[in-house]
Amino acid sequence: MSEYDLPSAARHPYLWGDTATAEALPEAVAGAMTALGAMPAAAPVAVADAVVPPTTLPSDAAAALEQALGAEHIRTDHDVRVEHTRGFSTPDLLRLRRGDASDAPDAVLFPGSHDEVVRVLEICSEHRIAVVPYSGGTSVVGGLTPVRDGFAAVVALDLRHLDQLVSLDDVSRTAVLQTGLRGVRAEELLGAQGYTLGHFPQSYEMATIGGYAAARSAGQSSAGYGRFDEMVVGLTVATPTGTLALGTAPMSAAGPDLRQLILGSEGAFGVITSVTARVHRAPAVRVFEGWRFPSFSDGAAALRLLAQDGPMPTVLRLSDEVETAVNLADPSAAMSGNSGGCLVITGYEGATDAVATMRAGVTARLLARGAESLGEEPGEKWRRGRFRGPYLRDPLLAAGALVETLETVTFWSNIEPLKAAITEAIQGALTELGVPSLVLCHVSHVYETGASLYFTIVTKQLDDPLAQWAHAKAAANAAIGRCGAAISHHHGVGTDHREAFAHEVGPLAIGVLHAVKATLDPAGILNPGVLIG
Amino acid sequence: MSEYDLPSAARHPYLWGDTATAEALPEAVAGAMTALGAMPAAAPVAVADAVVPPTTLPSDAAAALEQALGAEHIRTDHDVRVEHTRGFSTPDLLRLRRGDASDAPDAVLFPGSHDEVVRVLEICSEHRIAVVPYSGGTSVVGGLTPVRDGFAAVVALDLRHLDQLVSLDDVSRTAVLQTGLRGVRAEELLGAQGYTLGHFPQSYEMATIGGYAAARSAGQSSAGYGRFDEMVVGLTVATPTGTLALGTAPMSAAGPDLRQLILGSEGAFGVITSVTARVHRAPAVRVFEGWRFPSFSDGAAALRLLAQDGPMPTVLRLSDEVETAVNLADPSAAMSGNSGGCLVITGYEGATDAVATMRAGVTARLLARGAESLGEEPGEKWRRGRFRGPYLRDPLLAAGALVETLETVTFWSNIEPLKAAITEAIQGALTELGVPSLVLCHVSHVYETGASLYFTIVTKQLDDPLAQWAHAKAAANAAIGRCGAAISHHHGVGTDHREAFAHEVGPLAIGVLHAVKATLDPAGILNPGVLIG
Repeated sequence: MSEYDLPSAARHPYLWGDTATAEALPEAVAGAMTALGAMPAAAPVAVADAVVPPTTLPSDAAAALEQALGAEHIRTDHDVRVEHTRGFSTPDLLRLRRGDASDAPDAVLFPGSHDEVVRVLEICSEHRIAVVPYSGGTSVVGGLTPVRDGFAAVVALDLRHLDQLVSLDDVSRTAVLQTGLRGVRAEELLGAQGYTLGHFPQSYEMATIGGYAAARSAGQSSAGYGRFDEMVVGLTVATPTGTLALGTAPMSAAGPDLRQLILGSEGAFGVITSVTARVHRAPAVRVFEGWRFPSFSDGAAALRLLAQDGPMPTVLRLSDEVETAVNLADPSAAMSGNSGGCLVITGYEGATDAVATMRAGVTARLLARGAESLGEEPGEKWRRGRFRGPYLRDPLLAAGALVETLETVTFWSNIEPLKAAITEAIQGALTELGVPSLVLCHVSHVYETGASLYFTIVTKQLDDPLAQWAHAKAAANAAIGRCGAAISHHHGVGTDHREAFAHEVGPLAIGVLHAVKATLDPAGILNPGVLIG
Repeated sequence: MSEYDLPSAARHPYLWGDTATAEALPEAVAGAMTALGAMPAAAPVAVADAVVPPTTLPSDAAAALEQALGAEHIRTDHDVRVEHTRGFSTPDLLRLRRGDASDAPDAVLFPGSHDEVVRVLEICSEHRIAVVPYSGGTSVVGGLTPVRDGFAAVVALDLRHLDQLVSLDDVSRTAVLQTGLRGVRAEELLGAQGYTLGHFPQSYEMATIGGYAAARSAGQSSAGYGRFDEMVVGLTVATPTGTLALGTAPMSAAGPDLRQLILGSEGAFGVITSVTARVHRAPAVRVFEGWRFPSFSDGAAALRLLAQDGPMPTVLRLSDEVETAVNLADPSAAMSGNSGGCLVITGYEGATDAVATMRAGVTARLLARGAESLGEEPGEKWRRGRFRGPYLRDPLLAAGALVETLETVTFWSNIEPLKAAITEAIQGALTELGVPSLVLCHVSHVYETGASLYFTIVTKQLDDPLAQWAHAKAAANAAIGRCGAAISHHHGVGTDHREAFAHEVGPLAIGVLHAVKATLDPAGILNPGVLIG
């Protein structure tokens, strides 16, 4: 089993992260669940009892793959297949909790090198086997649930053995990282040499470099370190037709920037096997602070001016009134519309003098815009809990709550109408089904010209929670489309957003993506149905 | 002629910019020409005497175009055709100066709207007429010299009537700009509302928004305002198969960033008719300063640390020893290797307090790295002359000099080997032809992970200056390829760099670009031979 060492011995296929650190539902949250009328759900089906279809991997394909990788790197056993079934959206978890592993891959492959990945793609093209690139498994948009129709089998291509920091150029401050590296391990390896990538998505404990790149991850420190698509200066991509090596220079005028065609391609064009990313000196100082604004509108205006005129902190977030109430005080109070203003978190990382300058500048601007300082305590509380959010979902589902998130991004002038439209759409859709709901929202990432909105929705599970969520999500997607916003800021397209994405960019753009796919993946085996239909 | 109003009454098809402001060669430069052994060249052939081939525009195509645009917006007269012949590289000018207008378009079209552009592309697809999108006409890489083979005719599509600031969103700080707008005019229109684009390439007096976008312009203030490809948040593109509208949000995870596939496509995929660009408040303060470093190596290290650790000024450039000597003192001294160190220019633009903070931070860092302050005078001198460089080329060519520029970009750890290799390659190639040369170099743009190198080459014209330059340029391109750098940082690919570009990105990437082109431009009429073969 050595080659199949789980990220943590305590990892579970449908419970988040390191389950050894899982927590019970806080009492206040449990109270809110009662207020919502949630009743405890059935206990999840054990992994051993999940229903997995018989494997359909043809024997000649299996033989060819065994020759390419070695038999020990092709796994078809029950637990490994369940482990690679779907991602971590709430619908994914609801299905697995009731024992439905019908989307399990027929086999899981563990290549050990870029060349082995290329060889696997050749073999799978020849045998018409769909390939799902897999590393962290944290997709929340159906990015690991391909279309099976027309394929002899589906295999998951688990990149966990591509886990090396290949090189570090400390003059150029770039690092070559293999894409099976988990974020946590990448930081350990870079940290040992005095560097950081500075990329900390909420999925940090499970997600990998490959997922960051393939799905355009943003990261909670994007204000300071940039998005992952801004960090990548080079990519090596295995495709069924060979290897693409992109990124001759940081920026150039040598044609279109094809790196940006691979970033966000979600495994549909090729398998990214390594990236060259810019890295930063590990910060000497880290400070996080909390601020309170009277309203979301005031807070958003202040964030906008920081993004447009500077200075920018490393972390910058704004919770709306409801999220602020849930986070700061008694969650049940939020239900009655009680408002304690809106919480802003600022974080500063870097050299001592740089942090002092940045902090003084941001402080002056926030105070001038009417913020009240809450000191470091709320900032530290946020920092300590920044990766804990997904852990709460498991006990919430067990308590009979339906909890899920969605996110979007638009230009500043559209932020407030968009927020109102989405909130109204979700609450309206759930009201139609007869259930009250709690919709929390925060601005998670800011740009000069706009910002993202991240929503958390909590309600009680009805008899068919999958249909219930589909109804609410469809209403939210329609509102996003009507408001002219993007269907995702950092979760990606996957299968869940495929139609909305096609609507957003139009048929000509989808035609371009199909043409690119047909060139790189003529047999169409790569993540079929993900990104484009 | 009202629809064909030249940017300036004093514009000339093969003399740079506003010829009313042209200057004679400074005495010191004339002296250097004598030292190089240059002899005055033959006077340029008058525009009226340039040899233009008979127009081959088929009459049925002409009729369809007249119906689409109105007869007065289709011009086939001699002067207008000469005006649209090739771009502004030295080889382009040498050809025109001797009366060779053999690449003149058969007609010049002046569409008045996006829809007219779409219609023109449909008609030209039907009649197999090659279309060269044209706005500023400042390409220096053969971007306006398409392949004629297999086409009934070639037309230039001059976008000068698409010259509106369509809208300004002062909350999001975005502006919708039509692409026939010249940079100067765009700044006037934005400035009237208190904004600036902050994009100032050396070609600023002639270039347009469309050229900035299609060729990934960088701009002399890229350290502060970013490159043009970083400014663009949206694009409207007319293609033979319809309209692409890209840029739902500032940044997103909704698939690959297709804006970056159009930026740098140089008219080969479509005609960009408008862009949505981020804009900035017009700066309250502008300060430019000069600094001297003992050597290029010291200066480059200082620039690198500013780019990596901050703070970044708005403008940041470093001339090497030779360029510094030519700029600051007696140009002929440079020939003897006399060195007065290396000049750095820093520029600061913004609000008063932001400039003060930025300037103090940069000053402290430069002093700590061994810079000597030269005060504001060299900075102001650079600022005043920042768009004058191209004007010098005309009297230099007249004086019998061969003068041209080339540029590249690489990662910091490769900057000095690359600079040495290119300099040696050019000087070696010209020495083979028996002529001495002067190779000046500066770092024009810096990034966290690398920087661009911009070379100016001066030598005397031999009997066949086109072959002479081709020999030197081939040697430089080979050195760039050997060193693993990009074939262009901001000039683009055009036809001149097409082979080097194909070598740089490899056949699979070129295949992807061909597939994109085949989707958007199935008849292959858009700038054939530019970017890809």
